[in-house]
Amino acid sequence: MIRFNCDYDEGAHEKILEKLLATNLEQTPGYGMDDYCEQAREKIKSVCHTGGDVHFLVGGTQANLTVISAALRAHQGVLAAETAHIHVHETGAVEACGHKILTLPEKDGKITANQVKETYLAHREDESFEHIVQPKMVYISNPTEFGSIYSKEELEQLSRVCKECGFYLYLDGARLGYGLAAGGNDLTFADLARLCDVFYIGGTKVGALFGEAVVITNPELKEDFRYLIKQKGGMLAKGRLLGIQFLTLFEDELYLKISCHAIEMANLLREAFTEAGYPFLVENTTNQIFPIMPDRVLDQLRKNYSFAYQQRVDEEHSAVRFCTSWATKREHVEALIRDLKNTGE
Amino acid sequence: MIRFNCDYDEGAHEKILEKLLATNLEQTPGYGMDDYCEQAREKIKSVCHTGGDVHFLVGGTQANLTVISAALRAHQGVLAAETAHIHVHETGAVEACGHKILTLPEKDGKITANQVKETYLAHREDESFEHIVQPKMVYISNPTEFGSIYSKEELEQLSRVCKECGFYLYLDGARLGYGLAAGGNDLTFADLARLCDVFYIGGTKVGALFGEAVVITNPELKEDFRYLIKQKGGMLAKGRLLGIQFLTLFEDELYLKISCHAIEMANLLREAFTEAGYPFLVENTTNQIFPIMPDRVLDQLRKNYSFAYQQRVDEEHSAVRFCTSWATKREHVEALIRDLKNTGE
Amino acid sequence: MIRFNCDYDEGAHEKILEKLLATNLEQTPGYGMDDYCEQAREKIKSVCHTGGDVHFLVGGTQANLTVISAALRAHQGVLAAETAHIHVHETGAVEACGHKILTLPEKDGKITANQVKETYLAHREDESFEHIVQPKMVYISNPTEFGSIYSKEELEQLSRVCKECGFYLYLDGARLGYGLAAGGNDLTFADLARLCDVFYIGGTKVGALFGEAVVITNPELKEDFRYLIKQKGGMLAKGRLLGIQFLTLFEDELYLKISCHAIEMANLLREAFTEAGYPFLVENTTNQIFPIMPDRVLDQLRKNYSFAYQQRVDEEHSAVRFCTSWATKREHVEALIRDLKNTGE
Amino acid sequence: MIRFNCDYDEGAHEKILEKLLATNLEQTPGYGMDDYCEQAREKIKSVCHTGGDVHFLVGGTQANLTVISAALRAHQGVLAAETAHIHVHETGAVEACGHKILTLPEKDGKITANQVKETYLAHREDESFEHIVQPKMVYISNPTEFGSIYSKEELEQLSRVCKECGFYLYLDGARLGYGLAAGGNDLTFADLARLCDVFYIGGTKVGALFGEAVVITNPELKEDFRYLIKQKGGMLAKGRLLGIQFLTLFEDELYLKISCHAIEMANLLREAFTEAGYPFLVENTTNQIFPIMPDRVLDQLRKNYSFAYQQRVDEEHSAVRFCTSWATKREHVEALIRDLKNTGE
Repeated sequence: MIRFNCDYDEGAHEKILEKLLATNLEQTPGYGMDDYCEQAREKIKSVCHTGGDVHFLVGGTQANLTVISAALRAHQGVLAAETAHIHVHETGAVEACGHKILTLPEKDGKITANQVKETYLAHREDESFEHIVQPKMVYISNPTEFGSIYSKEELEQLSRVCKECGFYLYLDGARLGYGLAAGGNDLTFADLARLCDVFYIGGTKVGALFGEAVVITNPELKEDFRYLIKQKGGMLAKGRLLGIQFLTLFEDELYLKISCHAIEMANLLREAFTEAGYPFLVENTTNQIFPIMPDRVLDQLRKNYSFAYQQRVDEEHSAVRFCTSWATKREHVEALIRDLKNTGE
Repeated sequence: MIRFNCDYDEGAHEKILEKLLATNLEQTPGYGMDDYCEQAREKIKSVCHTGGDVHFLVGGTQANLTVISAALRAHQGVLAAETAHIHVHETGAVEACGHKILTLPEKDGKITANQVKETYLAHREDESFEHIVQPKMVYISNPTEFGSIYSKEELEQLSRVCKECGFYLYLDGARLGYGLAAGGNDLTFADLARLCDVFYIGGTKVGALFGEAVVITNPELKEDFRYLIKQKGGMLAKGRLLGIQFLTLFEDELYLKISCHAIEMANLLREAFTEAGYPFLVENTTNQIFPIMPDRVLDQLRKNYSFAYQQRVDEEHSAVRFCTSWATKREHVEALIRDLKNTGE
Repeated sequence: MIRFNCDYDEGAHEKILEKLLATNLEQTPGYGMDDYCEQAREKIKSVCHTGGDVHFLVGGTQANLTVISAALRAHQGVLAAETAHIHVHETGAVEACGHKILTLPEKDGKITANQVKETYLAHREDESFEHIVQPKMVYISNPTEFGSIYSKEELEQLSRVCKECGFYLYLDGARLGYGLAAGGNDLTFADLARLCDVFYIGGTKVGALFGEAVVITNPELKEDFRYLIKQKGGMLAKGRLLGIQFLTLFEDELYLKISCHAIEMANLLREAFTEAGYPFLVENTTNQIFPIMPDRVLDQLRKNYSFAYQQRVDEEHSAVRFCTSWATKREHVEALIRDLKNTGE
Repeated sequence: MIRFNCDYDEGAHEKILEKLLATNLEQTPGYGMDDYCEQAREKIKSVCHTGGDVHFLVGGTQANLTVISAALRAHQGVLAAETAHIHVHETGAVEACGHKILTLPEKDGKITANQVKETYLAHREDESFEHIVQPKMVYISNPTEFGSIYSKEELEQLSRVCKECGFYLYLDGARLGYGLAAGGNDLTFADLARLCDVFYIGGTKVGALFGEAVVITNPELKEDFRYLIKQKGGMLAKGRLLGIQFLTLFEDELYLKISCHAIEMANLLREAFTEAGYPFLVENTTNQIFPIMPDRVLDQLRKNYSFAYQQRVDEEHSAVRFCTSWATKREHVEALIRDLKNTGE
């Protein structure tokens, strides 16, 4: 069975394991106060051209609920696409912290500055505004859950509108590497730090065993953040495990290099689906591919490949998701391409 | 200024005030453990033909958050129409208790048994079901926020599907009297008690100074409910104020009689809007009327009447809401009818 | 049965009922936006010599959880006496909003500025401070749960230390009238407004059917407070009921006058207990009296009087609580005094 | 600098790293649904002689808040020692999930069956019981925060009383290995599974990089537990990392063997402190040692050793904590022993 079902099927990049091995019996302070974490924080701040704070968390849901919980007062909510991960796939983690998610219609997983502005105005002008959750933060993911990416222009606009409205802009970068390495991307780490109030750089899906680096640039959001990490169960005792991993990922641009590999593999697959005549549910340039295929063909592929079911399209066709990652083997991709050739309609 | 903007513009029915006056200096136990509450509970159970529990709360949001908080485990959510009061007009009260509201598209504020069944199946069949809030309760309002009502057949179906799915059915009856008294209604208190796991009979909008009577028929939901009332800040020290009011409302069918008055007044208005040529945003038979009118006419009416803005319809027309209630004066209705005659298009 | 078990056994002062009756069919805007509320707010601000905000809530638990929820971030907690009402008698209402209560040992229900300062320093100096809830608010009640009161000097000190530590000082005045009217009290409404960041003036126990007036003097705590009221279920639809009551209570110093009556009645009882040879669990000058009496005598008194059990003192003696209130009838007090005379040891 | 300040200063046991390395590029399903987790679950169930459920979580605070949140309804609380980790060192994680911790006085960190029974009776008999958080779970740690352990007899009694009272018994085994390997211990894994409703086997402090294995034996607590793990941010994407670690720890009794090493090292130190004439704040037989020493000596030791400050004892003496672990090097212990010899009073 060859797995394309997600981008966290394997362990970690070998350099990370080597470093973990080499440092294993060193004694360090806990909870992220060690030198490795410190070095990793400095590295990330330098790459992001920011004086912001950097915190390491174990996973994405944890990062999301901790950031949102730290930023909002009890009556405030977070704006997000109807398809946002926090809305549909985190078992109500945000609501469990007391906050409502205020959803917006999306296009390929993205929302626009205009939508945010309209929501702000509608709230402000509503006679019953105090009976409605107050929007205070905008959550976006980049790449989105559908693999689409925001352009610099779009992010500039979102950032500007958020400032006008007094909203925090939060970017969930669970697959950030695959966005930055994608064809057509014009965003950099420094852009994210400049345009977002807080964002996270995903490690779990991009070469690490686990780990997400939260970067907080808005001073209002910095205060006491570590209390929140601890309260939400995210303060890793051996915090250095996170520092060591991110330090390795940000040495010699490893993070971007391995992301580029995933994109290269995705592009090979993308081409093969196209050649085999399968349209896509969503067009994108990142590591998630959403072909629409006959159920008959899918059943056949399932014998040797694992992939994710996305949604039914019509009685005989479904959209599915194939992911590549930093760890995807070229021979696996080639095998799938060969098999796709035999399935074309 | 004559107010039709809502159904809680006045105080209470005079019989309630008389009774409050007559009993004012009596000494009774607190927190709803007095004889008036006991009598009112018995009265309501008798009218509902149920052996259920009855609890008195001060307001609707309080009732909703207490019921939902009592019923659900941390990972469970409540299904509701996108227009449900708990979703749009309670400042995230349910989420503040930790629970997500899972919305369904609605028609005139109503949802169907089929929608509930489909949601149940979709959740059960989703590979990632544990990453999604588990639906466990269905919230409906009757009348809905748009004044529409459920037929007995529709409620039977909802009830049946909820039982099949293991969901609790909760009916918010903030305006219940105006539903039961409405033209075309075929539901009774006893039907509600038979078909819902829990519902509340609204007093605030139907003759009381304040107060909602929560009726719990499903034994699973009865346990320890009073702890929840206290925790959520809803346990009135002088609980008898609620008992006295509901006792009065349920003597000689006062609750239904005064509801009928509101419907009669609404029908006069409804007819007048129709005659003046104004269509309705939603057709209904209860005490809320949603005419679509030219902004020019609305500006004129605003000089003497208060009513609620609902939504823009086109550049020159808006939908607004006029409410009648137990306290609506016939002369006020007649004045408005006269003024409407002079506005027709 | 004559009830001395608490101070909310009766309805409301007759002037309040008269005013409710007189205004009953007036039409007013809802949710506290009516003129009566506005007038009551102005009255209270004037009595308190403050430009603060005034909000009316239905009950004490509701007031406490709303204030605390509005003031604290997720990782912050509230310091309170081990015997504080929020800690022991509100079914975890504060924790249900996500906040820990950090308890301090008390003397007669009171805590000191020194204790607060020490807690602050201990937290700041703890190496693991981020693993501990951050103290941010100090909750006191005046009178306390044991009927004791803070002197102006004590409150000045608490206020000063809170400012030094960056803590909010919150005073729960459920029985405030009985504190201000008590022998030995040197505090005024204006002192409370000057020294506390937020406090509430209790109506439920002092002449109203229900209602507490929250006074917020610290600008940091004012923002968006009404959202919180709505979210927590405390926004009364017919908000004018609260305005009318507080307006009446603050006309002609009614609030203090009726409080003085309760104290006068309490002092008669206090004297009688003393003469009958019963010591007190706690000495105080307010409307709650805690005599220690033989169980044998208590059993006898229970036939005609209701009072609250407090705690066992030894095998044959218990401490109990007798309360007077604005509504206590002199003949009831005299009856009890007569009966006490026949019980002395 | 030699660190004795805690038991999580190093990485993981070498066998764990070897196994992580060997399996690194295997593709497995995520979220704990892989074979390694399955094998580890089976292993643990076999060692515990239980048909219970086993779930792997990343850390202790996460385990505690997830278990408690899964078990309790909104109005229920958890009984715990005043010194319990959940009460004093988890930044209010339990309260942030809405639940109050009801504290009991402790002796060396332990509570007794009698205390639990008395709390149960006091709650049941209180007239205002609905105004008080309902106790529903008992939390103990073994070893406790002071290194003490429960005897089988004590745990049997606690278990029996919990069953009588309808309480769940939850044991926090963050340092469980060091308890089971301690001198005087008569408990086994199977005893824990038999006597507790739920407990966890700590990995973070006992040989793993991170990880705690939650064992749920009471069927009432099993339902939907994975939803809670996800909601609270604890569902590790690459769940196999936990499975691989626990599988390794439970092969050839590695978990107990490395625990014994820590105890052996602790006993050497314990002896040395005693010989040097230092009394202990708490006597225990596990891996935490709490000597009381002159501040002068402590200052001297701090130059070469790291240890934790516990509390001031008098003007010139403090209690501190030295920890050993699976990774403690004999030469480090010997160095400290040598240095202690030169400090004796």
